[in-house]
Amino acid sequence: MSKIIKVKFLPSGKVAQVPAGNSILQSALTAGVKIESTCGGKGTCGKCKVQVSLENLLPNTSIEKEFLSEAELAAGWVLACQQQLFENTTVTLKEQKDVFKRKLGFEENIAVVSPASGITKSFLSLSPPSTENQMPDWETLLSALGHTEIPFNRSVAAYLPKVLREGKFQVTVVMDEEDALLAVEVGDTSSQLYGLAIDIGTTTIVAYLMDLNTGSVLASGAATNPQNVFGADVISRIVHVTDNDNGLQQLQEKLIHGLNEVISALCHDVGISRNEIYRTVAVGNTTMSHLFLGIDPTYLAPAPFVPVFRQAVQVEAGELRLNTLNTGKVSVLPNVSGYVGSDTVGVMLAAGVDRLQGINLIIDIGTNGEVILVGKDRILTCSTAAGPAFEGAEIKSGMRAAEGAIEGVTISDDVQLKVIGETKPRGICGSGLIDAVSEMYKAGIIDASGRLGKKDQSRDRLSDKLGRRLRETDGGREFVLVWGSDSDSGEDIVLSQKDIRELQLAKGAIMAGARILLRDMGVSPQEIDRVMLAGAFGNYINRESAREIGLLPSLPIERIEAIGNAAGHGAKMALLSCEERVRADTLSRRAEHIELSVRAEFQKEFVESLSFGRKV
Amino acid sequence: MSKIIKVKFLPSGKVAQVPAGNSILQSALTAGVKIESTCGGKGTCGKCKVQVSLENLLPNTSIEKEFLSEAELAAGWVLACQQQLFENTTVTLKEQKDVFKRKLGFEENIAVVSPASGITKSFLSLSPPSTENQMPDWETLLSALGHTEIPFNRSVAAYLPKVLREGKFQVTVVMDEEDALLAVEVGDTSSQLYGLAIDIGTTTIVAYLMDLNTGSVLASGAATNPQNVFGADVISRIVHVTDNDNGLQQLQEKLIHGLNEVISALCHDVGISRNEIYRTVAVGNTTMSHLFLGIDPTYLAPAPFVPVFRQAVQVEAGELRLNTLNTGKVSVLPNVSGYVGSDTVGVMLAAGVDRLQGINLIIDIGTNGEVILVGKDRILTCSTAAGPAFEGAEIKSGMRAAEGAIEGVTISDDVQLKVIGETKPRGICGSGLIDAVSEMYKAGIIDASGRLGKKDQSRDRLSDKLGRRLRETDGGREFVLVWGSDSDSGEDIVLSQKDIRELQLAKGAIMAGARILLRDMGVSPQEIDRVMLAGAFGNYINRESAREIGLLPSLPIERIEAIGNAAGHGAKMALLSCEERVRADTLSRRAEHIELSVRAEFQKEFVESLSFGRKV
Repeated sequence: MSKIIKVKFLPSGKVAQVPAGNSILQSALTAGVKIESTCGGKGTCGKCKVQVSLENLLPNTSIEKEFLSEAELAAGWVLACQQQLFENTTVTLKEQKDVFKRKLGFEENIAVVSPASGITKSFLSLSPPSTENQMPDWETLLSALGHTEIPFNRSVAAYLPKVLREGKFQVTVVMDEEDALLAVEVGDTSSQLYGLAIDIGTTTIVAYLMDLNTGSVLASGAATNPQNVFGADVISRIVHVTDNDNGLQQLQEKLIHGLNEVISALCHDVGISRNEIYRTVAVGNTTMSHLFLGIDPTYLAPAPFVPVFRQAVQVEAGELRLNTLNTGKVSVLPNVSGYVGSDTVGVMLAAGVDRLQGINLIIDIGTNGEVILVGKDRILTCSTAAGPAFEGAEIKSGMRAAEGAIEGVTISDDVQLKVIGETKPRGICGSGLIDAVSEMYKAGIIDASGRLGKKDQSRDRLSDKLGRRLRETDGGREFVLVWGSDSDSGEDIVLSQKDIRELQLAKGAIMAGARILLRDMGVSPQEIDRVMLAGAFGNYINRESAREIGLLPSLPIERIEAIGNAAGHGAKMALLSCEERVRADTLSRRAEHIELSVRAEFQKEFVESLSFGRKV
Repeated sequence: MSKIIKVKFLPSGKVAQVPAGNSILQSALTAGVKIESTCGGKGTCGKCKVQVSLENLLPNTSIEKEFLSEAELAAGWVLACQQQLFENTTVTLKEQKDVFKRKLGFEENIAVVSPASGITKSFLSLSPPSTENQMPDWETLLSALGHTEIPFNRSVAAYLPKVLREGKFQVTVVMDEEDALLAVEVGDTSSQLYGLAIDIGTTTIVAYLMDLNTGSVLASGAATNPQNVFGADVISRIVHVTDNDNGLQQLQEKLIHGLNEVISALCHDVGISRNEIYRTVAVGNTTMSHLFLGIDPTYLAPAPFVPVFRQAVQVEAGELRLNTLNTGKVSVLPNVSGYVGSDTVGVMLAAGVDRLQGINLIIDIGTNGEVILVGKDRILTCSTAAGPAFEGAEIKSGMRAAEGAIEGVTISDDVQLKVIGETKPRGICGSGLIDAVSEMYKAGIIDASGRLGKKDQSRDRLSDKLGRRLRETDGGREFVLVWGSDSDSGEDIVLSQKDIRELQLAKGAIMAGARILLRDMGVSPQEIDRVMLAGAFGNYINRESAREIGLLPSLPIERIEAIGNAAGHGAKMALLSCEERVRADTLSRRAEHIELSVRAEFQKEFVESLSFGRKV
C-alpha cells in the first residue's frame, strides 16, 4: 500500500489526504481546491501555475522550464500537474480572478414567446376526512381536482398529509401539461411560478431564473463549467470518463455542483425557494447533455462518433440532485447528432430558422463551432473542431472574457488596447485575439499565410514602436502586445507564432464547414442574405476584424449581425412554451447533419480557409 | 451543549457517541446494536434486559424493580430503557437468540397460477453503428425491438454503450408489460428471470425469491422486522414518526435494511445477482405499506384513521434503495382501508374469495387480526386490535415462534410440553399460549371468566403436581408452566393472570369483529361453511384449543382449516401474474370495510366474546 500524505492548500486552508506520488493538481482536485487547467494535466497548457512552500520540491521538469521563467522557477513557482508530492506539503496558490463583468448577451433579433409553460397551479379547498368519510388523502386531493387518473407520485404523497393539515385543507396543486402532479403547497401560492433555463457550455454555464406567469427573466448568472479541471475541451472530458471508473460520476457531480451554486445564488437574489422552481430546460452540446444526465459519452470520441441518445429527455430534478424542486421536471432539448447538440437546436429556435426567408448562415462560436445553413426549405448543420482558442485557451496569454482581458486591439504606429474592467491587462480573450490578428495582418506584422515577419526584414515597414514589439525567442517568434511595465503581472503579454496558428486552425475549421454546407445547398457565399453570430462571444466580436481574417465570409457588414446567447435564449423559449418544445423536436429532426470527417473535400476546403484576408 | 459520552457494547464491540442522559436503549439504536424491546422504550414490556459493567450505574427505577428479580438487580441486570448514561460506559448484552427453525407455512388449499408475470426478455442481434450509420445507441436498440415508442430510461441509457460493446451488439433486453425498458444485459440471458414476493409483517418480514419463467419458489427467508426497536405494534411506530423529525426516514431505513439482508441471503443461496430481480411485489398492513414507501402514516393513528393512499403503487426499486435491480419495478398491492391492508388483499387473492361458494370466514391472526367474511356475493372486512399477544409480546414469558418456544401444551395430572427445536424451553409462543390456556380452562385452573383459581380453593380439584404450580405473588396469581430446573434460563416460566387477560382481549376483539360481520351479512355463526386461518401462526394453532377458548366459532372441526401464509402467497401470485394484480385491484375495491370503532354494538360484542368456552 502506498504512503498517504497530507497536502494543505493556502489561502483556503483545505487539506487533502492523497497517496504519495499524486501531483499537486490531483491533490487539489481531492481537496476541492480549484486550480485552473485547460489541458487536464497533460502538461500542454501551462495554466496550472502555483507557488509551493520550498521544502520537498522536486527538480523542475522540462515542461515546467518551457512554461516558467527562471525568475519564477527560482521563486518556487511550478506547474501543478508536473510536481509530484512525496511528503506532507503546503501549497500556496496564486490568486486567480474569474469575474464575469461583461453583460451576458444582447438579445435583439430573437423571438419572444408568450408564457404557456404547461406548469399550472390550482388552489383547492378540500373536505377534511371524517369517520363517515375515511377517504385517503390522495383520493381527497384527486376528487377535488376532478381528475382521478393522475399518476401517483410517491414523493408528493410522502408529505401530503402534513401539507393538507398545515394548510387546513386549503392547498395549491402544481401540475404539468401531462397531468403529472409536481407539488402540493400550503395555502394559495398561485402567483408564484418559476422555472430555470440553463445553457451548459463546455467552458461556461449560464442560468436564467424566469417567472413562468409573466415570461420575464428575474435573474441570470454564469460560472465557469467546473469540469474544466478535467480538460478544456469535450474530448479531454470524454477521455477522462473512458479512463476512470468513476470519471462519469465525477464529471456529472462537478457540473451539477457548479449549476447548483448558480441556482442558489439566483434564488437568493430573487428571494424564492428552490422548491418553487418547477421546470428546468437545459441545452448544451451533445457531450454536455450526456454528462449532465450521467450517461456514458465514451463513444462520442472515436469514429463513428455515436451518441447514446439524441431525442429530448425529461427526468425528475431529484434524480440529478439539481437544486430545484426535487419532483420538478428537467427537460434537455433534443440533439441533432454527436457534435450538433441541443444548444444548436436552441440557436435554431431563437433564430426562428423555420420562418427565415432567403439564405441564412448561422455560426455559433464556442469551444466547438457549429454552423447552420438555412435556405431552400432545408436546414443543414455541421460541427467543426474550432478548439478553445476563441475562449482564450491554448493561447499563451489567453484567458476567458473576465476582468483584465484585452477585448479590443487597434494598431496604428503603436498598439492601443480595450481592457475589460478598464484595469491593467492580464491576458487576451477571443474578441481581442481576432482584433489583434486582424490589425497585425493589416499592419503587415503577419502575412496572409499567418507568418510573423522576421524582426530585421520588418524594420522598414513597421514603426519603431511596433518593430520593437516583434522578437525572436527560443520558442519562436512573438509579438509583444503589452510590455510588462503596463501589465497586471509585470510580465509581457505576447502573441506567439503558435497562438496565431491556433487561431488559424479554429477559423479555418469553421469557414471550411460553412463552405461545405454552402456547396451542399448549391449556393455561393455571395448569395447569403444574412450571417448571424450566436454565442456571448458573437456580441463582442468586431465584425470587420472577423471578416478581415476570413472567419466570416466577405459580405457587406450590414448583412452580419450578432444574435447574443441564442442557445440560452432557445432554452428560455422552450421553458416558457410547450409549443416551442414541440418545435425543438421538429427542428432537430428536420436538421440535416453533415458529417465533415467523411467528406473527402474537407481537407482541401480547410487548407484553403487557413489564410488571412477577406474570403468569398 | 450537552456532554457527549462513549457507550461501548459487548460482545459486538460497537461504540456509540451520544449526548449524556441518553438511555442504553437509545445508545444501542445509535450504535446499530439490536436490543429486543416490544414497547419502544415506554417501560411496559420488560424485554430490554441487559447486563451493565458496574461503574456508573444509577439507582434502579421502580419499573426495573417490577420486571427484575433482586438477584438479577444485584448482578447488574437493568432495563435498557430505564438506565440513563452520564459517563463513558461498557454495556454487556445477554445473548438473544432469534432463530426461525419452524418451516414457514404449508400451502395447500391455495391457488396456483401459471407464470405470466409481464416481465419479458428479448435476445437481440444489433447492427453496430458506422460512419454511414451514426444512429444513437438508444435508437439502434429500439429499432431492433421494432418499437420506437419505448420511454427513455436514463439509468439504462447511462450504461447502454458499455453493454452493447461488451456484448458485441448481442444483448438481452428486459421489459415489463407496459413497455418500460428495465435493463439491457450482455449476451443471451433469457433463461434467467427472477422476482421477489415480500410480506411485510409488523413483527416478521418474509421474502420469496421466485423463478418467473417456471413459477417456482427458489428460496425463502424471514427475519424480525427491525422496526421493532421502535415498538411492537403499528401505533408505537406511527407515534415514533409523529414525534421525531426523522422518524419516518428511520423506520423506512430499518425496514429496507432488514429486507435487503434477507434479499442478499436469498441471492447468495440461489447464486444469482440482485440485478436479476426485475420485479418485487410487496404486501403488508396499511401502516407497513406507508413506511415501506416512505409515506407519512401519522393520520392512520387518530380517528378517522385515514391513510394517504389505498390504491396499488408501483415505483422503481432504486427509489427505495431496495437491493434488487435499481431500475426494476416494485409493486405494493392495494390496501382496503387504514387498517385492512394489502396483506389482507393478498389473503383474498390466495383464498380466491371471488370464487368461493357458501359462507366463508377468514381470520388472519397477526399483530392485528383481520377478519374477512365472504358470502352472498359480498366481501366484508374489518380489522381488530388483537395486539401482539399471539406473537408472544406483552406476555411475561412470551416469545416469538423460535427455538426454545413452547408451542404445544397438554395438561392431565401434570403439564406436558412441546418445544420448538426440542431444547430446554425459553418461553412460550402464540400457539403454545392458546394450548396452555385451553388446557388450563379444561383442567379447571382458570374459570370461564378467565380468572386463575385461588391456590387453597383449587387444592381439591387439582392434582398435587398441578396444585403446586399455582401460586400467589406480589404481582398477582400465576401458573408455573416450567420449573426453573427444566428451563433454559434456570428461571420458572409462568403464565400470569395478566397474560391470560391479554389473550382474552386479543381473542375477544377478533371474535367480536367476526360477529359484527356475520350480523351485517345476516348469517348466523352456524351457517359458516368454512373457517380459514391465515398467517404462519394459523398453521401451528391447535384448532380444538382455539375453538375451546372461543377464538374460533364452535363449528365441527373439519370446517376449520389453516391456509398458511396466505398474504405472502397472494404476493407470490401477483408477482407471477399480471392478471392477479388486476384481480387484487378489483378485490380491494369490492371489499366493504366495516369500521368497528363507530359501531355502537362493538363494545357489547367484545365483552360477550371475552369469556372462555366454545362460542356460537
